[in-house]
Amino acid sequence: MPNMHFPTVALVGKYHDTGISAPLRAIAQILRDAGRHVLFELETAQNIGLTEFPVASVDEIGEQADLAIVMGGDGTMLGLARQLAPYGVPLIGINHGRLGFITDIPLEDASTAIQRMLDGEFETEARSLLQSSVMREDDTLVSALALNDVVLSRAGLSGMLEITVHVDGLFMSKQRADGLIIATPTGSTAYALSVNGPILHPRLRGLLVVPVAPQALSNRPITIPDSCEIVLTLTHSTSGRNEGASVHFDMQSWSSLQEGDRVVVRRSAHTVQLLHPVGYSYFSTLRRKLHWNQMSGSSID
Amino acid sequence: MPNMHFPTVALVGKYHDTGISAPLRAIAQILRDAGRHVLFELETAQNIGLTEFPVASVDEIGEQADLAIVMGGDGTMLGLARQLAPYGVPLIGINHGRLGFITDIPLEDASTAIQRMLDGEFETEARSLLQSSVMREDDTLVSALALNDVVLSRAGLSGMLEITVHVDGLFMSKQRADGLIIATPTGSTAYALSVNGPILHPRLRGLLVVPVAPQALSNRPITIPDSCEIVLTLTHSTSGRNEGASVHFDMQSWSSLQEGDRVVVRRSAHTVQLLHPVGYSYFSTLRRKLHWNQMSGSSID
Amino acid sequence: MPNMHFPTVALVGKYHDTGISAPLRAIAQILRDAGRHVLFELETAQNIGLTEFPVASVDEIGEQADLAIVMGGDGTMLGLARQLAPYGVPLIGINHGRLGFITDIPLEDASTAIQRMLDGEFETEARSLLQSSVMREDDTLVSALALNDVVLSRAGLSGMLEITVHVDGLFMSKQRADGLIIATPTGSTAYALSVNGPILHPRLRGLLVVPVAPQALSNRPITIPDSCEIVLTLTHSTSGRNEGASVHFDMQSWSSLQEGDRVVVRRSAHTVQLLHPVGYSYFSTLRRKLHWNQMSGSSID
Amino acid sequence: MPNMHFPTVALVGKYHDTGISAPLRAIAQILRDAGRHVLFELETAQNIGLTEFPVASVDEIGEQADLAIVMGGDGTMLGLARQLAPYGVPLIGINHGRLGFITDIPLEDASTAIQRMLDGEFETEARSLLQSSVMREDDTLVSALALNDVVLSRAGLSGMLEITVHVDGLFMSKQRADGLIIATPTGSTAYALSVNGPILHPRLRGLLVVPVAPQALSNRPITIPDSCEIVLTLTHSTSGRNEGASVHFDMQSWSSLQEGDRVVVRRSAHTVQLLHPVGYSYFSTLRRKLHWNQMSGSSID
Repeated sequence: MPNMHFPTVALVGKYHDTGISAPLRAIAQILRDAGRHVLFELETAQNIGLTEFPVASVDEIGEQADLAIVMGGDGTMLGLARQLAPYGVPLIGINHGRLGFITDIPLEDASTAIQRMLDGEFETEARSLLQSSVMREDDTLVSALALNDVVLSRAGLSGMLEITVHVDGLFMSKQRADGLIIATPTGSTAYALSVNGPILHPRLRGLLVVPVAPQALSNRPITIPDSCEIVLTLTHSTSGRNEGASVHFDMQSWSSLQEGDRVVVRRSAHTVQLLHPVGYSYFSTLRRKLHWNQMSGSSID
Repeated sequence: MPNMHFPTVALVGKYHDTGISAPLRAIAQILRDAGRHVLFELETAQNIGLTEFPVASVDEIGEQADLAIVMGGDGTMLGLARQLAPYGVPLIGINHGRLGFITDIPLEDASTAIQRMLDGEFETEARSLLQSSVMREDDTLVSALALNDVVLSRAGLSGMLEITVHVDGLFMSKQRADGLIIATPTGSTAYALSVNGPILHPRLRGLLVVPVAPQALSNRPITIPDSCEIVLTLTHSTSGRNEGASVHFDMQSWSSLQEGDRVVVRRSAHTVQLLHPVGYSYFSTLRRKLHWNQMSGSSID
Repeated sequence: MPNMHFPTVALVGKYHDTGISAPLRAIAQILRDAGRHVLFELETAQNIGLTEFPVASVDEIGEQADLAIVMGGDGTMLGLARQLAPYGVPLIGINHGRLGFITDIPLEDASTAIQRMLDGEFETEARSLLQSSVMREDDTLVSALALNDVVLSRAGLSGMLEITVHVDGLFMSKQRADGLIIATPTGSTAYALSVNGPILHPRLRGLLVVPVAPQALSNRPITIPDSCEIVLTLTHSTSGRNEGASVHFDMQSWSSLQEGDRVVVRRSAHTVQLLHPVGYSYFSTLRRKLHWNQMSGSSID
Repeated sequence: MPNMHFPTVALVGKYHDTGISAPLRAIAQILRDAGRHVLFELETAQNIGLTEFPVASVDEIGEQADLAIVMGGDGTMLGLARQLAPYGVPLIGINHGRLGFITDIPLEDASTAIQRMLDGEFETEARSLLQSSVMREDDTLVSALALNDVVLSRAGLSGMLEITVHVDGLFMSKQRADGLIIATPTGSTAYALSVNGPILHPRLRGLLVVPVAPQALSNRPITIPDSCEIVLTLTHSTSGRNEGASVHFDMQSWSSLQEGDRVVVRRSAHTVQLLHPVGYSYFSTLRRKLHWNQMSGSSID
């Protein structure tokens, strides 16, 4: 079988969800029957008490697997995609509950879909990632990847942040707000959407800058080319020096931000490769997730 | 039966909908069995070929009926409510399709609901109306009632209106926009909602002023006491003198507006009395119509 | 002088602002020359090193003064108005910097304006307040007044709150959001405005309920009658049990909120009486503060 | 002078503005002194009664000029840029009134700025254009270029359009709305901004799809790659068959749209080359036009 697609496949499931045991085992059997070498992610295997397949850490999966199949919700997928991004392992997302934005194969279709995809019937979609660091003067305090967004927000009880935004070294704006979101197209349908951000198509080469509760009423979301480097400087925090502000890289938080610190954000050299069944439509996902088919609201008949 | 509720009841159905024939006749029979005098609205009777009940014009219904039962959508209800408002006839709305904001009894519950309401088990909700006139110098060109809204909008191909707003004689703002909406609480869930207007609870004594596509980014919807008189003056129309602008009173339009004309809007002395089954909740209608139960959007699980 | 307006007048200035010393002394002299008994608020007097007038605590001002003149910004005015509300002392606001929403007399006009107002040439505007308590089962944990808003918000690093809203005992909605704002008309131009809330005219008898970064896209601000009692129950906090959530009454914070706690909000029996020079226009303040005169944005000429 | 920049320069002014006569003549003199061949646009010359320079139609300018200098507002610039786009003539915009988004040189700086730019000290910014056609079955009814936007909107008095959107042949959404805007980055700060569209940076390779007053509350602006072809089909118009709908290509209108007609929009092969003085910053224009420096709104001090 010289041209076998994905000779080694890793399986990962949502932790703390024992209901995924049977469907994960069923998929593992399909893969084994199809002649693939199957690896189970270590904690997933422990969680469901699985012993009949070899296990591997996420890093080992990154080094050894040709494909990772993730069962869970968008949060599970997001976390794993970010960890595997440096290794370039493509991912398939199977949703165990209601369908997500990036876990777009329903559980009941999983067997059929995976068999076809093993035969090479799939579409590849590259999603961009953010590479971000917090700088204090010349020191890098923390660095992380984010698939959805990098969010600067007030951690404390009250008050407002003043954030100065530079794009490719040019001063863009000084924002007084609860926070500021830098989102990828993938992240445009996450937190940014709840503060009136626009949707960015996954193939758009853009990044989104959206304030949270901005004081200036003429403030608007802005989309910039994803070749730009964005630097957010915490120029003032009215919540006081002891409470600080925090940065979130997807759901990971770092909360020791001080006045003068800079959050540097740029597109990562890595991308996440999502594999979809043939016929996949991003717009179909949007319509389903945002209920566009329902004429809610101001209808008069 | 000295204390019989609603001795004379009128029935009105959506025109151009022959599917309402059977359910309307069934309700008529319930009313007759309950000893009520039944009147059919003239065009409704013609539309469904009904001959076995007396017919009446809307004005005659206003003069003779103690209750009007309307079958159709919100549009049908809206039109009839406006016509009957001067007569003070209360209304019950039965929705023949999906439930509306003001036609809140589903067809399958209609028989049971009406029987209980005839026995006095109902709740009354008063909805305010707008009384509006277009003035050119000292002449009144047209006057109308509106249950939802009075809308000033550009009728023409392109360009923008400049509308000056006065409230109780005080200058409020000069707006450059596609149009301007003055809405009642009832109208706050109609057109105004699609241009980011807030929802006004039906018992709020307020009117909503919302621009459509305003040029000034700091523009915001404003809610004022419904005791205020609002005067909109068309101070400039960039669409040129031949195209004019138009005023809409609910769905009725008047399109000969010229620069300098004034649209005067105030709360009408009339109200519309909507009758609901006991246990009615406005919030329940909102949740159902706006799909608040669905966690659409930015969910991450 | 049997009909003298405001025989005893208190003066209050923004702390930590020594620049107000001279203008405050000048106003004190005007008041003394006009035969008024002048009281200086204790900390204000200490701050500017004033010894030639009697001093009084805020509570003593509440008991003794017929009028309080406040020099500072909206924040200073807000704090004092809330403290004096139970005593019914009316307030005049003089803005030492740029004009505020409720400190509407510029410093350079202060002498003339105050002299006229002492002569009875003023307009009174009543602003409503919120009375709010945090309840855990049957215990009241904290109670406070707010002139702007009561805000429930996540205190912690990440995650989202689930807040269940009841109005007069009726279930309104379950919101998943960063937070929720209950605002008075006065507060409608504060924090609520930065999350797309509408403006409520001060004389509107309404309260505003606005979510911050709501997950459900069909969520909208809602205005309800100010006779309603609103209960917010923290039904879930994804930020974990140790981080909790916080409640803000204007700028005062209480941060020990636990799941199951209820925040009860109703209109206070007290109101704040703001005195304005004759000819005052709320709309003029709006236009100036929101820059409505500037045709910012999408203009094409 | 073998390497002279812009040997032939055309001058164009806003029609119906006689105030531009003197400044236009001054610039013409600078150009002549600098050894350039100067062409005046025909109607501009007639408008200001100029006879001492050769005149040319816009098409002749396109064929002969190496640079066009436009004096007026953004509207004037927009019209000329669209006409000259097929010829690839770069443009400089001088604003005679308040500065615009694309006419970014103030009149008082014009002489100095132009002299430097003739010496080669300028920056070039390419702006994308839309190529759009209206199709009825297999016939092309009208075609046009647009630098800002293509807008489909109801022409009539009331009612709503139903527009079906396809992107690269894939069904995206069916929208019920007053209209729909397809905007370039340049157009993102025009009409689209007044209906809550985001700002797209000029170098972003994206197009914006934004509804006007959409019925579905979960509707959001969407940004797609500018390599996509967008087809808007008018699937229903509730305003009736006689009123139709209209399409606008920037400010040019075509108002005979019928149900079933398709508006096809794609990025034009042409671009508009805007020349700016060295040091130009798009963000600076944004800050000035949108008044980001002013802390309007919800400030509490």
